[in-house]
Amino acid sequence: MLTRPRPAIVLLSGGMDSATCLAIARAEGFACHALSFRYGQRHAVELDAATRVASTLGAVSHRVVDIDLRAFGGSSLTSSVAVPKDRDDAAIGSGIPNTYVPARNTIFLSFALAAAEVLDADDLFIGVNALDYSGYPDCRPEFISAYQAMARLGTRRDALTIHTPLAALTKAGIVARGVALGVDFGLTRTCYDPSATGAACGHCDACLLRLKGFRELGLEDPAPYA
Amino acid sequence: MLTRPRPAIVLLSGGMDSATCLAIARAEGFACHALSFRYGQRHAVELDAATRVASTLGAVSHRVVDIDLRAFGGSSLTSSVAVPKDRDDAAIGSGIPNTYVPARNTIFLSFALAAAEVLDADDLFIGVNALDYSGYPDCRPEFISAYQAMARLGTRRDALTIHTPLAALTKAGIVARGVALGVDFGLTRTCYDPSATGAACGHCDACLLRLKGFRELGLEDPAPYA
Repeated sequence: MLTRPRPAIVLLSGGMDSATCLAIARAEGFACHALSFRYGQRHAVELDAATRVASTLGAVSHRVVDIDLRAFGGSSLTSSVAVPKDRDDAAIGSGIPNTYVPARNTIFLSFALAAAEVLDADDLFIGVNALDYSGYPDCRPEFISAYQAMARLGTRRDALTIHTPLAALTKAGIVARGVALGVDFGLTRTCYDPSATGAACGHCDACLLRLKGFRELGLEDPAPYA
Repeated sequence: MLTRPRPAIVLLSGGMDSATCLAIARAEGFACHALSFRYGQRHAVELDAATRVASTLGAVSHRVVDIDLRAFGGSSLTSSVAVPKDRDDAAIGSGIPNTYVPARNTIFLSFALAAAEVLDADDLFIGVNALDYSGYPDCRPEFISAYQAMARLGTRRDALTIHTPLAALTKAGIVARGVALGVDFGLTRTCYDPSATGAACGHCDACLLRLKGFRELGLEDPAPYA
């Protein structure tokens, strides 16, 4: 008997976490519909990365949704406020940084939920990762679990499951998992403040954590740095 | 001692419910920031209504956010599927109608949450109303309460309150409340399938429920009908 693969919606930013998350969802046998957002981010180069990643990792579809979070402001990622650079681990781990985009994951998950309703999918994947970087309230496991409870009540999807396969992994663990699943990290873009050509700055929190992950495994990050 | 009024975000569609909701929030002393959405709805005439309502009811600001829910489809309100007409009360009260827009209130509330973060507001108002029309899962009180729990975890706003002042009112009760607070219902637009000039059809579920509300109070609906 032939069975069709179960559809899943996978949030895909173009960074290393969501790329690994997509690879895991594929390895688990899901037919993956990738969803990205053009939300006024200064690092919109990540959307080209998302397109390449979706294609090489075998997503069934990839949709980029336009939403204007710049209209709200409140984050260095969507305004001219400077992205913090060269912070040490203690600084990165304390408080909510100015790169936090208000309600971003709530908004992204809500569009994923709309897509799930239309595609009759009961599975959403999001590459949140609370271990190395707990500064964002919308990456915490208790947020995800509350979101799932809300989503089941607010839609037809009363069996909806939000998968967070990276939740308990370090950055090094994510790199290792991605390498094992054939993710080409050279295609992924993580930097909050890339150059016009898409080269990573190497100094923002996202770059520092990414580089640390590769370093801990004795690997070289194949992505371009300025 | 002078105190500044507390800011609140009020979701405003331009219909009779959200207009009354805004009037209630104002009467409770909030400085109201109204938020509407251009989401590909066939009844976009409601956005002009929202602008007039926000202005006459003294909103501090009114923002219309562009999001494309047509890209997802799945609803007669955002596609060429016919809006159901002349259904009786039993039909209106049973099941999820094709006018349900997947995850719409979840998406709207998520943008309201982003606005609340940026404006330092702990109060959101939404004119959901589950009594006359329980067909939409994202209008149920248990959905709103789960949303509030999720929103507190996913943002800096751990005291966030979602106000639903219409939850326990019939349509007639909403009309009565609105009239008492000076809402000009002639400005509001409720119809799912209005004419090009903005006249209501008088036959969709939204029109039938609205007209019933006015009729029960012995009032005439001042909005234009085709």
